[in-house]
Amino acid sequence: MNKDVYTNWMTTHVQHNKTETKADAVASEFPLTIVLNQKEFATIVCTPTNLIEMVIGFLASEGIILQRKEIKTIEIDSTRGFADVELYKQLQPEALNPSQRFIGSCCGKSRQFYFKSDVQTARTIMESVSMTTKQCIALMATLQEQSNHFKQTGGVHNAALCTVDHLLEIRTDIGRHNTLDKLNGYILDNRLSVKDKVIVFSGRLSSEVLLKISKMRIGIIISASAPTDLALKLADELGITAIGFTRDNKMNVYTHLERITDLEG
Amino acid sequence: MNKDVYTNWMTTHVQHNKTETKADAVASEFPLTIVLNQKEFATIVCTPTNLIEMVIGFLASEGIILQRKEIKTIEIDSTRGFADVELYKQLQPEALNPSQRFIGSCCGKSRQFYFKSDVQTARTIMESVSMTTKQCIALMATLQEQSNHFKQTGGVHNAALCTVDHLLEIRTDIGRHNTLDKLNGYILDNRLSVKDKVIVFSGRLSSEVLLKISKMRIGIIISASAPTDLALKLADELGITAIGFTRDNKMNVYTHLERITDLEG
Repeated sequence: MNKDVYTNWMTTHVQHNKTETKADAVASEFPLTIVLNQKEFATIVCTPTNLIEMVIGFLASEGIILQRKEIKTIEIDSTRGFADVELYKQLQPEALNPSQRFIGSCCGKSRQFYFKSDVQTARTIMESVSMTTKQCIALMATLQEQSNHFKQTGGVHNAALCTVDHLLEIRTDIGRHNTLDKLNGYILDNRLSVKDKVIVFSGRLSSEVLLKISKMRIGIIISASAPTDLALKLADELGITAIGFTRDNKMNVYTHLERITDLEG
Repeated sequence: MNKDVYTNWMTTHVQHNKTETKADAVASEFPLTIVLNQKEFATIVCTPTNLIEMVIGFLASEGIILQRKEIKTIEIDSTRGFADVELYKQLQPEALNPSQRFIGSCCGKSRQFYFKSDVQTARTIMESVSMTTKQCIALMATLQEQSNHFKQTGGVHNAALCTVDHLLEIRTDIGRHNTLDKLNGYILDNRLSVKDKVIVFSGRLSSEVLLKISKMRIGIIISASAPTDLALKLADELGITAIGFTRDNKMNVYTHLERITDLEG
């Protein structure tokens, strides 16, 4: 059991009204405040693992950086819960407010974006790998084998960066979005090409998840869970194959079916 | 099927590699930007139901208002996704940044708070109802009977305001936190007393959930799912009985067991 991911808590288990008290593993939750060029930028509540990767991925997702090398230093103060980040560039005041609402014109290209920063950073995926149903199902089965955290505590999500045949890296967090930021930080830190990569994900497909996938330039997201309509509209527009409810030998394909090569009517 | 909660999406169901395409209900996701005294305050991605209640509850949770009567007008523009709120009072600039990090002193009272606004608005629960294990289990069973949304789409959460014996109001949302803001808005709008009320909740118990429960002055939260350690530390400090994994005839009591009256060792 990873001590950064779980903490023991003395728990009273009740069945009917009989009790048994014992230490249970519960998911650790840690507030990390990112300070950017000496200014408070955002507070992320997370699982305290891979924090440097998470900060890199989060800053990329928020449109603050495009590449790892734009960051001069990152210092994590894990006692106080701070990440001090120095960038080489100065930031304009509007960059410090990435969640400002975007208002599309009536006949604009996309009416699904709601934050200004997403309009600038989300990109339509033009190049991506293709794969078979069997490969999708196999990757999800491997993710679930390798991450029995959720079964233990019911409290954490997992995302894995994969080729069509192999899981490369798994990241764990209480926040669905943080698992993707941690993977994105890993990609940027190692300057990996993502053209042949897909993401397998335990969580729901919300609009924010699809926007992060787009910013990571990933073409296929395979989820164990349900999508929202806004996530699917974004997937459709951004050229992403969105797959949900991947369980046993089944899955639902919602958008861009052309990348799943073995579908038969 | 509530059309505000679900949308149909043409979905390709794959089993092995055989496909069947049909319209599936997926959860609706709607971005609502709250404009406060003509200034953009926050954007909430939500299920587009009970939006006025959600805005009232959110503003109370963020420490902007204490009572419904502080709001002069709320206008929802559901086409553009805006809630225009006029308060009677002027807002100080710092009130518009509620998620500023709080740094406790070394020997401060609580070291679990991480936002300044929470230090001002979260309160220790002094008065609360007591109940039996059987009542907890029965309320959760009723919530699950009355809300088969999650089974349909896997995409939404439910929270219910209850007496120890009856569900009074259920609110549904793709965001766990929004279900609580909607209930809080209902409480404030109707000036209900909460001393004899408890909350039954489908989602995980995170720190943010516990802070919202504290700000609603609720003493018992009964969840179907898992807690985090930070949520439990807050529950312990704030005098809240936190119950998780409430399923069939079982539940886990994590904090303030004194309010569950029939526990036997």
